Amino acid sequence: MSPVISPNYSTNKPRRPLPNTLSLTDAARLVNGQLEACGKNETDATQISGINTLLDASATELSFLANKRYRLDLESTQAAAVLLSRDASVDARQCVIRVDDPYYAFACLQRFFHPDIAAKGIRHDSAIIDASAELADDVDVGAGAVISAHVRIGKGTRIGAGCVIGEAVSIGEDCLLHAKAVIAEHCVLGNEVILQSGAIIGSDGFGYAWSGSKHLKIPQVGRVILEDDVEIGANTCIDRGAIGDTVIGHGVKLDNQIQIAHNVRIGAFTVMASQVGISGSTHIGAGCQFGGQTGIAGHITVGDGVKLAGKSGVLSDLAAGGIYAGAPAMPHRLWLKVSALTTKLPELWKAHRNNKIHKPE
Amino acid sequence: MSPVISPNYSTNKPRRPLPNTLSLTDAARLVNGQLEACGKNETDATQISGINTLLDASATELSFLANKRYRLDLESTQAAAVLLSRDASVDARQCVIRVDDPYYAFACLQRFFHPDIAAKGIRHDSAIIDASAELADDVDVGAGAVISAHVRIGKGTRIGAGCVIGEAVSIGEDCLLHAKAVIAEHCVLGNEVILQSGAIIGSDGFGYAWSGSKHLKIPQVGRVILEDDVEIGANTCIDRGAIGDTVIGHGVKLDNQIQIAHNVRIGAFTVMASQVGISGSTHIGAGCQFGGQTGIAGHITVGDGVKLAGKSGVLSDLAAGGIYAGAPAMPHRLWLKVSALTTKLPELWKAHRNNKIHKPE
Amino acid sequence: MSPVISPNYSTNKPRRPLPNTLSLTDAARLVNGQLEACGKNETDATQISGINTLLDASATELSFLANKRYRLDLESTQAAAVLLSRDASVDARQCVIRVDDPYYAFACLQRFFHPDIAAKGIRHDSAIIDASAELADDVDVGAGAVISAHVRIGKGTRIGAGCVIGEAVSIGEDCLLHAKAVIAEHCVLGNEVILQSGAIIGSDGFGYAWSGSKHLKIPQVGRVILEDDVEIGANTCIDRGAIGDTVIGHGVKLDNQIQIAHNVRIGAFTVMASQVGISGSTHIGAGCQFGGQTGIAGHITVGDGVKLAGKSGVLSDLAAGGIYAGAPAMPHRLWLKVSALTTKLPELWKAHRNNKIHKPE
Repeated sequence: MSPVISPNYSTNKPRRPLPNTLSLTDAARLVNGQLEACGKNETDATQISGINTLLDASATELSFLANKRYRLDLESTQAAAVLLSRDASVDARQCVIRVDDPYYAFACLQRFFHPDIAAKGIRHDSAIIDASAELADDVDVGAGAVISAHVRIGKGTRIGAGCVIGEAVSIGEDCLLHAKAVIAEHCVLGNEVILQSGAIIGSDGFGYAWSGSKHLKIPQVGRVILEDDVEIGANTCIDRGAIGDTVIGHGVKLDNQIQIAHNVRIGAFTVMASQVGISGSTHIGAGCQFGGQTGIAGHITVGDGVKLAGKSGVLSDLAAGGIYAGAPAMPHRLWLKVSALTTKLPELWKAHRNNKIHKPE
Repeated sequence: MSPVISPNYSTNKPRRPLPNTLSLTDAARLVNGQLEACGKNETDATQISGINTLLDASATELSFLANKRYRLDLESTQAAAVLLSRDASVDARQCVIRVDDPYYAFACLQRFFHPDIAAKGIRHDSAIIDASAELADDVDVGAGAVISAHVRIGKGTRIGAGCVIGEAVSIGEDCLLHAKAVIAEHCVLGNEVILQSGAIIGSDGFGYAWSGSKHLKIPQVGRVILEDDVEIGANTCIDRGAIGDTVIGHGVKLDNQIQIAHNVRIGAFTVMASQVGISGSTHIGAGCQFGGQTGIAGHITVGDGVKLAGKSGVLSDLAAGGIYAGAPAMPHRLWLKVSALTTKLPELWKAHRNNKIHKPE
Repeated sequence: MSPVISPNYSTNKPRRPLPNTLSLTDAARLVNGQLEACGKNETDATQISGINTLLDASATELSFLANKRYRLDLESTQAAAVLLSRDASVDARQCVIRVDDPYYAFACLQRFFHPDIAAKGIRHDSAIIDASAELADDVDVGAGAVISAHVRIGKGTRIGAGCVIGEAVSIGEDCLLHAKAVIAEHCVLGNEVILQSGAIIGSDGFGYAWSGSKHLKIPQVGRVILEDDVEIGANTCIDRGAIGDTVIGHGVKLDNQIQIAHNVRIGAFTVMASQVGISGSTHIGAGCQFGGQTGIAGHITVGDGVKLAGKSGVLSDLAAGGIYAGAPAMPHRLWLKVSALTTKLPELWKAHRNNKIHKPE
């Protein structure tokens, strides 16, 4: 058996028509790049219609090399030109655009070819918008979306189909809520926030006090604050604070299916891969990077710039700038040794048994 | 970089106006507490408007010390009075209310200041309620919610915006379904059940039989039963039984993003933190406590009162009352030693290599 | 404390009335089985009304033994007849139907007693169907579902309440979308695809380029392709490709709360238990089986037929046909030894310390 990819769909159809094209010269200019090995005709006449992987790029598309794994694809690519870093010694058959960071240049070009859709003030007939809600004129609201009382939404924001926005929620400008995102009452979103589908902002934190005969629910009366430029992944949940707020800092990016418990604070520009879980009242620093399926205990502090490998388990404070792995987490270098030596346990044990037999204590 | 908290929102705005205030004397009475070090004027005149953390409490709020981590905050708190356990030897500058359990007292006071919202029989115009559904008079139904045929809902229950309740579902009294919860056909909720947003009750269990050429789907014809006083977290999924039912016992509390497979049974008052996964047909006892990201294999039995640390992996039956950690799970005391010694593997290995060199076998 | 199961609901009420009954002879014929130890009257007269567990089967139901754990239940079962494998040496008191694979026979009979519900072309009044969408005549659309512009849906497909289908999505024949599934724009579903509630198909992949001062979002312009006979679990998320597509192969079954990142490809008939996470651009072979909570790094290749135990962590390519466990993953046989020996670390350490004391280096 091998993967069966049916032939009845192309494997690289663009999501929407591309309105924009570029000459090679203009493409290079857009990314502060330098053209190399390109004929004069080529640079002016060729109209670039998009950017693609080395493998899939056509003769009117650009491509890029940002990950050495794909180096061999350089030889066979059909791309009109390839974005390479300034110091790459690769011999490309193609015209080359030298840039500081090919991945960043790719991102800029992709954004040129696929610009954000502007809000146009379209409210679907089936959207349910409370009369007391204040929406800027150009806010879009999709089919079946629910905007509750006293909600405020800033200009340029687009609310997807089936979203539910609870009472007195405040949403900033130029936000994008994909279909079926939920924001519970009183939560606050800054500007340029993106919620993927199924994201839940402001669910109750998990708080009970044992009465002797049952778990007494503690009302969760804080909010969730998402600062500017935050993105929240699909089906990710961020619990409202028990008393104070849960705060996701400026520019934080959370992948899908992440769980953020009540009163967590996450510093600016921190990035977490999917399925991470952060327990209550833990404070995460700025500029951190967490691998997928990492779990962090409650009431601890993780310093700025900490990096955690996937599946890490953090039970105590971590100082700024460290790189950790494992559960319980240890320095990444130590973890590399420990992981390798774990597989030697049978040899260690055998030696120990032999030793005991030869030299009984 | 450090976390940026924008100044344009207060960090502790209450979720809704607080209608209730209390004198200190009445507050103490409400929690069976004893006032200490309070002036007569203080106890009668001060109207308490809420309860807050030591750090954030104002002069008209109470606070509490339930976790030693926050002991130092006692010195600087502005709170009108502090809830302390009867045996705490802490010197507080404030008026003190001595109680058996400060956390439980906090819960009681928070519930006083933030009472549950009563159902009022409000049905949003956009709610879709099948003519054959039987709802008690005071049941609230939010915007865009769907109540299917033959559903029964008891008095005092509130159904949030965008919920979908499948055919012949039975929901008891005083339940609260937050926005976008889903209950599939024929499932049963007892009284005082809470579903957070995005919870899925009664998805199909994961059951197939290999035909030799494909996975043949086995119809999942059992139900999910949530007994009284159960709370289910945001985006948590509970699969319906393959043949019999999946049963979540009285007073069980499940956090967000938990996965409960078909035909699992969970005993009364068991509590699970987020991202736990329980495989099919496993029976969990009463009064258990599971840390986040724990996984439990299928067709096994976990006894009453078992505690599991976060990220545990359970592959076989566990006797009642034990405390376990690790994957595969081992007694927690052993795990503490093993975890510490894991970091000594490089030293062990080095000694072993030296030994081999000196004394080749 | 022990689990409290309230008496006011039966524990095994069928999901819907069973229209079909069978004589024992016909039941045996349906599964290519051979009747043993059954009286003539029994085989013709007894009308079988369903299939149930050994413990719960009534005298008009069949049962089966597919897992040795339940062997003892054979002695007490009330079932009319029991499905046993041809070589099982078990002495059953009941009439027996010998079959090649009792579990597969159970599946076939359960499908007979609970046939799929046919689409009937019922469109709920509250469904929002764009005028440009093309739906086959018999397609059902549930309450509050949203079908966007240029969507195409093949015959026999049923769309549950509250689903959101984005622009230009293509859905094949005989698909079943449970309540509140989401498919984002331009994604493609083959025939006989099932989405459980809350599944998100086509959320944005997690892609940013660091600008020096912020994470620049990279537009995710690929699609998700779900080939024929795929089933996606509740609240599972499948991200759309960054450039090309994310492709889930023919007959793949994904359980609940799984995360599939952008540009992942999964080969035919692969099965994953709940809470698995696959990072971006990783290619998974055909016929693989992954246990729950497994995590796989990005940009790697896992060969056909690989089996991974629950909680595995895979950081590098895995050759076809292997069985692995642990994080980082190692061969399953080695992992069994290593896991057992991990608990011996205290003994190893003690011996090492004694050795150092007796023989200081």
